[in-house]
Amino acid sequence: MPVALERASGETLTDQLVASLRDAVHRGLLPTDTRLPSTRTLADELSVSRTVVAAAYARLVDEGYLEGRHGSGTYVRTLNEAARHGSAAPQPSEPVPSPTTADIARFTFRTGVTAPDAAPEGWGRALREVARTTPPNRYLDAQGEPPLRAAIAAYLARSRGLTAEPESIVVTSGATQSLDLIMRTLVSSGDKVACEEPGHPGVRALLACHGLTAVALPVDNDGARPQDLPRGRGRPRLAHVTPSHQFPLGVRMTIGRRLDLVAWAREEDAFIIEDDYDSEYRFDGPPLPTLTGLDPERVLYLGTLSKTLTPAIRCGYLVAPRDMARRITRLKDLCDGPLSWPVQQTLLHLIESGRLERHVRRTRQRYAAARAALRGALAPVQDAVTLTGIEAGLHVVLCPRAGLSAERIAERARANGVSVTTLADFYTGPDKPDGLLLGYAGMSEVELVEAAEVLVRTISDLDED
Amino acid sequence: MPVALERASGETLTDQLVASLRDAVHRGLLPTDTRLPSTRTLADELSVSRTVVAAAYARLVDEGYLEGRHGSGTYVRTLNEAARHGSAAPQPSEPVPSPTTADIARFTFRTGVTAPDAAPEGWGRALREVARTTPPNRYLDAQGEPPLRAAIAAYLARSRGLTAEPESIVVTSGATQSLDLIMRTLVSSGDKVACEEPGHPGVRALLACHGLTAVALPVDNDGARPQDLPRGRGRPRLAHVTPSHQFPLGVRMTIGRRLDLVAWAREEDAFIIEDDYDSEYRFDGPPLPTLTGLDPERVLYLGTLSKTLTPAIRCGYLVAPRDMARRITRLKDLCDGPLSWPVQQTLLHLIESGRLERHVRRTRQRYAAARAALRGALAPVQDAVTLTGIEAGLHVVLCPRAGLSAERIAERARANGVSVTTLADFYTGPDKPDGLLLGYAGMSEVELVEAAEVLVRTISDLDED
Repeated sequence: MPVALERASGETLTDQLVASLRDAVHRGLLPTDTRLPSTRTLADELSVSRTVVAAAYARLVDEGYLEGRHGSGTYVRTLNEAARHGSAAPQPSEPVPSPTTADIARFTFRTGVTAPDAAPEGWGRALREVARTTPPNRYLDAQGEPPLRAAIAAYLARSRGLTAEPESIVVTSGATQSLDLIMRTLVSSGDKVACEEPGHPGVRALLACHGLTAVALPVDNDGARPQDLPRGRGRPRLAHVTPSHQFPLGVRMTIGRRLDLVAWAREEDAFIIEDDYDSEYRFDGPPLPTLTGLDPERVLYLGTLSKTLTPAIRCGYLVAPRDMARRITRLKDLCDGPLSWPVQQTLLHLIESGRLERHVRRTRQRYAAARAALRGALAPVQDAVTLTGIEAGLHVVLCPRAGLSAERIAERARANGVSVTTLADFYTGPDKPDGLLLGYAGMSEVELVEAAEVLVRTISDLDED
Repeated sequence: MPVALERASGETLTDQLVASLRDAVHRGLLPTDTRLPSTRTLADELSVSRTVVAAAYARLVDEGYLEGRHGSGTYVRTLNEAARHGSAAPQPSEPVPSPTTADIARFTFRTGVTAPDAAPEGWGRALREVARTTPPNRYLDAQGEPPLRAAIAAYLARSRGLTAEPESIVVTSGATQSLDLIMRTLVSSGDKVACEEPGHPGVRALLACHGLTAVALPVDNDGARPQDLPRGRGRPRLAHVTPSHQFPLGVRMTIGRRLDLVAWAREEDAFIIEDDYDSEYRFDGPPLPTLTGLDPERVLYLGTLSKTLTPAIRCGYLVAPRDMARRITRLKDLCDGPLSWPVQQTLLHLIESGRLERHVRRTRQRYAAARAALRGALAPVQDAVTLTGIEAGLHVVLCPRAGLSAERIAERARANGVSVTTLADFYTGPDKPDGLLLGYAGMSEVELVEAAEVLVRTISDLDED
């Protein structure tokens, strides 16, 4: 294989492998239909772990360079000539193949996706409405258009019982940008930031990119544990939590813990980020009031439309104390500007017409049905595995009983055509509890049941071994 | 006046004044229809410069708190109850008044705006087209959708003779975000970055916010002067230039200077950013080839749709060497994600249908006519002032002859109802040549002529003094 990896390089091994393979395809060293070595073979050859090779293959499949052919391995796809000979003039009539949803696995339990087959309620109508208006000819307020901020404030009051003035709201491209802006405003390189363990790898990656040090905030069945947060000189300046539905464990932070967390922030002069990424989807009753409501001066609230609409539309918002919202806006103005006007207007139409909330209710029913179907389909292995975090959100955690390894279930399931993520990927410390993460929003109910049946067979087989 | 300013504070005096006045309005200390003191009176009272007060008033007018009433001063506008009592529950049916285009001046020669009265050609149709498609249900490629990148590559080849592979293009929310991503990727706090003197204050503000040190790159009639760039240990790592139409002077960088600049970058292992913000609007022939074309490994290209469509849509792109484009994409994925899918799709429709280029041709004619009208209207004072930088772009520089002060022209013009910017605002050093910046894109031809006639009267009056 025409691959050279450098351990001393700043790039990860996976990134290097992806780049090498991509270049090899472009340079014609790996012609169309070449069968790639198995992940095990290539991993041995390069003396890297199989995870590195599997991740690189998966990314190149996503990018449209490789494809998995069922039961026979991974192959180089046909690229067009312009893409192959990188230096040729671009050929707009034959664009580079877009990333496809093709995957080596037949079914993937993905997190971070929404229902695949339906536009959000009223989406087309709202866009057509926007199409009728001439866009403004000038730079707009980086904080977001005042009517949209007023509509979001009213939406938060109705749906989350959170009172926020429009002046405290900043419209962003999503929770990711909100987090980035907050970090750039509130902390500086070298500072410590607490984040949940287990937690979202994207949050830690963003911390690292700002030169911030992550402090692990352990999570148990009552949510994040503020009692474990350092105090005094070595304390974190900021803590990122997901109290409504912890990502990935799915637990809810108890009110006692919430009060303790806010007390910690007050006593230590620190701030808290409440990432309320999927609170719209709670199936056992209304969501708990926000952490932000307990102390709006200490807690910043992140909302996103990525779970209710789709992550492709890129819109979200943050709520912060007014002076902080002003500083964040000033930064956003310098480094990005306001969210695109047509996106802001579409969102305003969706909220004001009541269609956003109708869409949330409709999809809540849909996801509740999906969750029930998944639970039903997994019933045959209920002695071997436990489902947790199922009361809310768009994913559940499957914990195998002692003696059954999540890693092995994932490996075998993948061989059987179903891709699942292990919980271990969300831990950074050495102590990695066993479990699988099943994101269920992205499949139809039929696919979901079929995928669950593969899991059941896989688990049963392993259970009998 | 209920205002307290603190000179030691990290906030600028203007920001503090804006915040104080805004709060005073909210707290009812400045009721509706209160006439504010004149800028001179308040400036004296607070011992600050009149510019501070004028800037604060202008911002509050934009935000909808104040309004200028013709010939009688600046007044507090009627706000709704929710906005006045900041803590009350938001009332979505009566949103906070949106920023209006009302201004204390009757006419403003603004830069950074586009033609006010027309949607971009095909805009509504493209949006309606997008409204028909179900948005994807997943996170998309942060680099931009491959078909859009291919379309941009083809557009660049046609319109700028620039050959770029889609893999080298990153779709962003505009030149501002492109700059921010490049700075975060290529330089780190403490590094030096060269930027044009005079130049765009936003670029310098962004540098400061990254802890970068600005090195002045002087500009003369042949464009930026690479011969003045430091070499060796103290050299800048990056230089930001606007070679097609220098902002704000409007000059074009000669080919000799371009070759010298690229040679400097090669010899000093530095990079150049070519900010091609308005090259579509060149009236005396086709635009010069790009600087990027001279060395695509050393020069990064920034393109924007803010001048051709409108700044409100927020879309642009950068072209960088492939490995750099990859690093920038990875950062964008961590801190923001891709540009909103409906915006990407709309842009794709506009480019592929040929409507973007048709719109550019149409607006080029419009702006050429505006420019001719402006030049004609200013002809009566041609002995007192010179117009430069008029061959391209959407603004011209008016230089008064010796003895006439641009500052005084601006002050008097404002009193006569016309707001213009002085060139001095774009210089950071002590040496500030005299001149006025007239952005002419945002007015109709009738308004433009009327505003120019006010300028002519103002200049003639001063000339006779």
